[in-house]
Amino acid sequence: MRLAVIPGDGIGPEVIAEALKVLGEVVPTAEITRYDLGASRWHATGELLPESVLGELREHDAILLGAVGDPSVPSGILERGLLLRLRFELDHHVNLRPARLYPGVKSPIVDPGEIDMIVVREGTEGLYAGNGGLLRKDTPHEIATEVSVNTSFGVERVVRDAFGRASARPRKHLTLVHKTNVLTHAGSLWSRVVEEVSLEHPEVTVAYQHVDATTIHMVTDPTRFDVIVTDNLFGDILTDLAAAVTGGIGLAASGNLDITKRNPSMFEPVHGSAPDIAGQGIADPTAAVLSVALLLDHLGQNESARRIEASVAFDLATRDHASPGGTFAIGDRLAALVSSNVRVS
Amino acid sequence: MRLAVIPGDGIGPEVIAEALKVLGEVVPTAEITRYDLGASRWHATGELLPESVLGELREHDAILLGAVGDPSVPSGILERGLLLRLRFELDHHVNLRPARLYPGVKSPIVDPGEIDMIVVREGTEGLYAGNGGLLRKDTPHEIATEVSVNTSFGVERVVRDAFGRASARPRKHLTLVHKTNVLTHAGSLWSRVVEEVSLEHPEVTVAYQHVDATTIHMVTDPTRFDVIVTDNLFGDILTDLAAAVTGGIGLAASGNLDITKRNPSMFEPVHGSAPDIAGQGIADPTAAVLSVALLLDHLGQNESARRIEASVAFDLATRDHASPGGTFAIGDRLAALVSSNVRVS
Ligand SMILES: CC(C)[C@H](C(=O)O)[C@@H](O)C(=O)O
Ligand SMILES: CC(C)[C@H](C(=O)O)[C@@H](O)C(=O)O
Repeated sequence: MRLAVIPGDGIGPEVIAEALKVLGEVVPTAEITRYDLGASRWHATGELLPESVLGELREHDAILLGAVGDPSVPSGILERGLLLRLRFELDHHVNLRPARLYPGVKSPIVDPGEIDMIVVREGTEGLYAGNGGLLRKDTPHEIATEVSVNTSFGVERVVRDAFGRASARPRKHLTLVHKTNVLTHAGSLWSRVVEEVSLEHPEVTVAYQHVDATTIHMVTDPTRFDVIVTDNLFGDILTDLAAAVTGGIGLAASGNLDITKRNPSMFEPVHGSAPDIAGQGIADPTAAVLSVALLLDHLGQNESARRIEASVAFDLATRDHASPGGTFAIGDRLAALVSSNVRVS
Repeated sequence: MRLAVIPGDGIGPEVIAEALKVLGEVVPTAEITRYDLGASRWHATGELLPESVLGELREHDAILLGAVGDPSVPSGILERGLLLRLRFELDHHVNLRPARLYPGVKSPIVDPGEIDMIVVREGTEGLYAGNGGLLRKDTPHEIATEVSVNTSFGVERVVRDAFGRASARPRKHLTLVHKTNVLTHAGSLWSRVVEEVSLEHPEVTVAYQHVDATTIHMVTDPTRFDVIVTDNLFGDILTDLAAAVTGGIGLAASGNLDITKRNPSMFEPVHGSAPDIAGQGIADPTAAVLSVALLLDHLGQNESARRIEASVAFDLATRDHASPGGTFAIGDRLAALVSSNVRVS
């Protein structure tokens, strides 16, 4: 297994160190190459993602990313120039974001129930296409546009993936989230694609929900969701909310998948670089560790993935949430659990 | 006071009847004209908003709307053809949505604190502009676009309004919500306008937050928000979530304001037509009643508005939330409280 690791900025390197510690327990032979990308490289050299680095990244089986972003870099530079560039260049069309409320974890909502959902967020289109512009900048007649681009090709492949995932889960339920009553063109395309693909999956029940109403259900009735499929921006918003109701982005893992496997997929915690707590050794590496489990799943090492997940579940069920330990301590605990071959439930 | 009333579909007519009952207590001389618009008119005549009706609506001081929408009408028809058409034709650029957790009301979040915020949602631009289309429909090469249109003129007037509202509130705090790190063009315009207008309001503290992170804070730390200013779609999403954490859209009122007063403003509960409970007399008319308070505020009848709000607050603090009574009963209680001239706190 050839793994490219981009520790990134802020707490990125700290949580990645623990994630690799855990990975070492299940795949001790993993070949790891580190890539120094992010705020400090940009400051030092002006480089975001040099072509040569992109070429090298392509030669790996998967990429593990910590976090990028720093207040010293103007908003959008690292996001568009590095993170989104990776997602787009490597055709990460399925942005996979599970949200599960682990036993022992406190939800900020009163009656969460057993939340266990997967959000399949489209990753290469929509308002993230970078299609837009400014006209008459800095005049009273300025116009700024942002274009959401949705293609039959792009929508169908994620909808198909989402149906596949729903079909493999016990509840076999899929919810399309959109805003079809206002975004009638994109909404029409998404709805028609879901309808068409549903014919191939009579075993999956399908629901539709507007994005605004979905936020209500996320806090009042989140167990209704099994698999959600949605566009890039709605997915961005809803997965932060889903992470919040399942205990916070400190626990939320994600995979940026090219399901064709033509390009390496990329795995990252949903949280950002959290510069305010960087360097203190207090960031929770759990989301990064769970991202390693998604990575292993994607590479077909499902048994190892389950071992990591079971270790995390055990740790979350037993840890003292008021003082869970620092970054190293949590990483050590998880590595020990994984190596002790905790029973997979 | 010349008032146009559009009871609309589903529970619309039921909650509007109670709202008018309450209004009658404070403005017994209000001249009310009803307009039959919505699903049944569309089914019967194909009409959504005839020019002649639009012309008549313009002759009123304000519009009170119940709710429009019915499952028998394809998604988007009534929304784009009636509700959004009204908002756009009447230049309702400030979509005002207060979210307050009234004493006695249960929030679905664990530790809500004293939530009291106002969302100033832009109402005539963004992705709601209806700018987009389908190319190569029903082919494998189909493309659907939706264009978010943001103008200096359009952004500045709502930002200015939001600063004014923030300035008049005790905390004097304004949060711009956007997604500047991805929607760099629109984000740049919104950020620059907020920065410029902030120079005229040194008394207002200003924060920025990405829309995704905002959903997290809505459920973990909602008291941080005082006034939020945001675009049309983010405002749509966040106000449903804000309504949810303050007890549900059964209590959420809104005003669609033309702050220049060239056109009548329109007031409506945030909830929809709820066809599943229509005709049963069980819909809570509180949001419609609070919309009347916003209406009175807009027309300068602030004392009457405060009386209605105080009555609602009293009723919410004292009602049995498990069985609050039916639509009529709640309306009767509120009307009685208003007429008894409940003390304005
Ligand atoms: C950092 C940002 C560009 C990114 C996104 O919007 O996708 C983040 O919010 C995420 O969800 O991974
Ligand atoms: C019904 C729909 C068009 C509308 C909107 O999206 O603005 C509603 O959700 C609202 O918030 O008033």
